[in-house]
Amino acid sequence: MNVIEVTDPGDGRLADYVRLRDVNLRRSLEAEHGLFMAEGEKVIRRALRAGFEPRSLLLTRRRLAALADVAESVAAPVYVVADDVAEAVVGFDLHRGALASVRRRPLPPPAEVLSGARRVVVLEDIVDHTNVGAIFRSAAGLGIDALLLAPRCADPLYRRSVKVSMGAVFTQPYARLDDWYGGLDDLRGRGFRLLALTPGPGSLPLADALAASGPADRVALLLGTEGDGLSSRWLDQADAAVRIPMAGRDVDSFNVTAAAAIACYELVRAAPA
Amino acid sequence: MNVIEVTDPGDGRLADYVRLRDVNLRRSLEAEHGLFMAEGEKVIRRALRAGFEPRSLLLTRRRLAALADVAESVAAPVYVVADDVAEAVVGFDLHRGALASVRRRPLPPPAEVLSGARRVVVLEDIVDHTNVGAIFRSAAGLGIDALLLAPRCADPLYRRSVKVSMGAVFTQPYARLDDWYGGLDDLRGRGFRLLALTPGPGSLPLADALAASGPADRVALLLGTEGDGLSSRWLDQADAAVRIPMAGRDVDSFNVTAAAAIACYELVRAAPA
Repeated sequence: MNVIEVTDPGDGRLADYVRLRDVNLRRSLEAEHGLFMAEGEKVIRRALRAGFEPRSLLLTRRRLAALADVAESVAAPVYVVADDVAEAVVGFDLHRGALASVRRRPLPPPAEVLSGARRVVVLEDIVDHTNVGAIFRSAAGLGIDALLLAPRCADPLYRRSVKVSMGAVFTQPYARLDDWYGGLDDLRGRGFRLLALTPGPGSLPLADALAASGPADRVALLLGTEGDGLSSRWLDQADAAVRIPMAGRDVDSFNVTAAAAIACYELVRAAPA
Repeated sequence: MNVIEVTDPGDGRLADYVRLRDVNLRRSLEAEHGLFMAEGEKVIRRALRAGFEPRSLLLTRRRLAALADVAESVAAPVYVVADDVAEAVVGFDLHRGALASVRRRPLPPPAEVLSGARRVVVLEDIVDHTNVGAIFRSAAGLGIDALLLAPRCADPLYRRSVKVSMGAVFTQPYARLDDWYGGLDDLRGRGFRLLALTPGPGSLPLADALAASGPADRVALLLGTEGDGLSSRWLDQADAAVRIPMAGRDVDSFNVTAAAAIACYELVRAAPA
């Protein structure tokens, strides 16, 4: 077991873990080193089970026992620190007491995750990491075959996304489109029917739109950014605009996490595995 | 128009707005003065439209124009401040630039919101204000008749809940149970069938459980706390345990906001208005 006590928060071996709430720093640091953070025992275990390789682990002393089997099984160093050292490094009280710095893997190309997929969800520009994580958790839980992300959609492997997804980002197949403008052409070329989720007028209830497809048909649901929804470009490219029926009552839209959950539920209900 | 320029962040007239992120302070301050905070133009307008009365408004200078009609229509004072004064009072950059301190109204008793209701959702101990707000938004958007809250469920009128709900907390009928232990007896006595949402084994798919009720039947869906779910007391009290079918894939539950959205969607789908 490669367990190393570290007492100095400035120790270079802890560099992967510094200032976890500094979004700008973390974006560049994680991109440059090709790493992401897994936080908490459950999520760390899921990352390893999904075949990801840790660069190192950072545990507070009282967490070491709970993760002793993990510490034993990994080749990477396991840094053990006092609570105050952890806090000094990461910048907040690390009450879950366990972090792993994990190597990213190259994302598969869209063609690979679309092969054999019947029901996919495409995120145009969801910018909030919490929403991305929650959408992945719903999609994985319900059995959506794949997710596609527009170029500016937030990173599913950012710490907050990983955490909110409860590790669903490790198992849910997904790919990144490299072209926003023409990104939907490929999907259409593969026979996907493109449904744009939008509360705007003139949209069809989602369940009705799905009833018009057979369960074996390929359907891609497009979800737009928080607040403004889908771009007019993507709305124009879609085969149909669809909506979740609403009751009125001075509420005119759903939270994107709620809308995505309902939409994924309908997609899967209309085409059981 | 009762517009008053204030330049001193310590001015006692701004006392309703101090340190909005200090949860403990805000809980006692808001309870003692019977107020809640509405934040942002849209949410403030919705509060007023729902008949709530402001104690005062706090606007940054550049927001005054956008809310001039509101400032004109209210009897309460409208305090206008520079951005840095707003920040010094509330404790963060108030980029939405508009707050209202609004008088709470007594909540109706459960009997009142249940009268005529067919589909209700009961929140046992949802402790996160974001989740409470998002659940209210979904319930209102889909047309759930009423919500009931267990004694320890987080406050829907706390600033963060109000904001995430986009004001749905103003229009969605809800009441607070004053008794956790026996709180479900009254519902059962009124002929509600109690369905406990839980991913545990032995639960029925929600859609199947609802198909066993007619659309006119009274159904109450019970939702438990984040993480641990429903208490064993409430699980025991329910007529049936129900679940949202999952696909596996190493994801064993949904985020409570996602689960609530799907469950509300099913409740309403099974019993259209």
